[in-house]
Amino acid sequence: MKKFIDTVDTLLIDSLAGFAKAHADIVQLNSAPLYLTRKNPKTANKVALISGGGSGHEPLHTGLIGLGMLDAACPGEIFTSPTPDQILAATNAVVGDQGALFIVKNYAGDVMNFEIAAEMLECEVATILVSDDIALPKNHYTGRRGVAGTLIVEKILGAATENGADLAECVSLAAKVTQNTASIGIALNSCTVPALGKPTFDLDDDELEFGVGIHGERGRSTQAFKSATRIVSQLTEAISIALQPQAGQTVLLHINGFGATPLIELYLIYELAERAWQQRGVKIVRSLVGNYTTSLDMAGCSITITIMDDELLALWDAPVHTANLRW
Amino acid sequence: MKKFIDTVDTLLIDSLAGFAKAHADIVQLNSAPLYLTRKNPKTANKVALISGGGSGHEPLHTGLIGLGMLDAACPGEIFTSPTPDQILAATNAVVGDQGALFIVKNYAGDVMNFEIAAEMLECEVATILVSDDIALPKNHYTGRRGVAGTLIVEKILGAATENGADLAECVSLAAKVTQNTASIGIALNSCTVPALGKPTFDLDDDELEFGVGIHGERGRSTQAFKSATRIVSQLTEAISIALQPQAGQTVLLHINGFGATPLIELYLIYELAERAWQQRGVKIVRSLVGNYTTSLDMAGCSITITIMDDELLALWDAPVHTANLRW
Repeated sequence: MKKFIDTVDTLLIDSLAGFAKAHADIVQLNSAPLYLTRKNPKTANKVALISGGGSGHEPLHTGLIGLGMLDAACPGEIFTSPTPDQILAATNAVVGDQGALFIVKNYAGDVMNFEIAAEMLECEVATILVSDDIALPKNHYTGRRGVAGTLIVEKILGAATENGADLAECVSLAAKVTQNTASIGIALNSCTVPALGKPTFDLDDDELEFGVGIHGERGRSTQAFKSATRIVSQLTEAISIALQPQAGQTVLLHINGFGATPLIELYLIYELAERAWQQRGVKIVRSLVGNYTTSLDMAGCSITITIMDDELLALWDAPVHTANLRW
Repeated sequence: MKKFIDTVDTLLIDSLAGFAKAHADIVQLNSAPLYLTRKNPKTANKVALISGGGSGHEPLHTGLIGLGMLDAACPGEIFTSPTPDQILAATNAVVGDQGALFIVKNYAGDVMNFEIAAEMLECEVATILVSDDIALPKNHYTGRRGVAGTLIVEKILGAATENGADLAECVSLAAKVTQNTASIGIALNSCTVPALGKPTFDLDDDELEFGVGIHGERGRSTQAFKSATRIVSQLTEAISIALQPQAGQTVLLHINGFGATPLIELYLIYELAERAWQQRGVKIVRSLVGNYTTSLDMAGCSITITIMDDELLALWDAPVHTANLRW
């Protein structure tokens, strides 16, 4: 395993310490239990927005703490859920008199631990599950996984909470965003989890993994390697079937890299996806291209589409100032 | 070769087309000759700032066009200099009555083609060579290469030109920045140039390349793989010898990924570098961590230090609004 690493045990905490120092103007780190908040954590007159999950997806979620997005994030060990005590402490550190909203990617451990924390908290709490990954069928027994669409939910809800939306309004808005968002990804190579020390799955030089998750798990199918245009066509078709955006509708197009894919390739994917949607009469009105919801050092990308309306556009455009997303 | 690509011939132009569409609020693309400018290109009452070089280093330089940084960028083919006609047309598209400043990484082809363009232009032109890579000795016959420190030169000069600095002031400021900046990098794996279709050099699973360049060229030496702390110690020592920052001095610390290195590892490197400089009594007052000066899909990172004073701090902190760098 060739990574920049000292030991498996120190990677996460040292990386978070560096993150907190590099962005000391935006965030602060609490080591035990482990969570990060905005530099000025107390949220008067707004719903507190908290997320978290296994580490290895950076900048999700820690890099999205700050004005216009999260109030706090709870990083678990790599690809491992944060514990209830992390979530409890993080929430108590940031919650004001408007209650707390949890944004949780739909994985059993995350769902359970956020639920336990919610039951233990004295403040009002609501939870949003994100399950935008259409690689699994809608009726799959685990439900669909939360992937790159999570960032879009966090951005839009972040803006809404800054604008003073109450907890009920946030839940209703979140339902609208999640219903209008779909993602699907493809990997060229697996990631290597440090504790394992080798790639989670093997792909030959002429193979790719279609419908891949973000935890080094296999996808819907292993396929023959193909051109970028054919890859984009396949991803677009899958989203089109699942989300059914109509000709004339306006959408946000998010091209997400999984950690080891350079921008020159991600912008190529953007160009090809833009053409594919235009052929379907769907208009791209906003975009986000980059490595945002990563899977350590996995090579690959996902396409996410959110069907937008004026309300969502205004919230997407609202100011955001975090370590890794700003406008 | 597993990359998102259709053909070697279309990768660059399609990627740039996607980039220009995704950031149509900031940049515009001219296809023939190939260059990009700000959306509103004409620069009245300011020196026009133009850079360029081989592609494959994204977001350098195209992602750094916009308020507070570049006025135009000329992308060559991958790892290939832009031609004089690109530079000529880009300059004429943006130059006002204050002349043009070229920021050029010190590679023979880039230097020559920017020089030819400068001779053909009717406006006043000055050129800054960036040669921050200390992997080569100072008296090497080619001079030192320009690498990740280029972004720092572009940011600081970008702010100065927005503030109304004239061409002579820009040249003097650039000399100060370049004299106070040093970089050195390390690769865990080579990049794959699409036209070649295989890694430029081979590293075994227990090897790394110290003092590597950003074009898939070998570095100062192939070494045994080692811990992140030992890597950082070696890079820090090399910069310390070359730049000699003194105890008590304040510096900017830039951890740059080469394209395939995830943030969790880059922030670990930041933490270890911060400790190493603190032990030397050098104070980190500003930071930048991410994949900014890349080498396609190379895994690795570089450390850049710029010794800062109040003038440089104010220019670094000045607003910037580009596709890939914003504050």
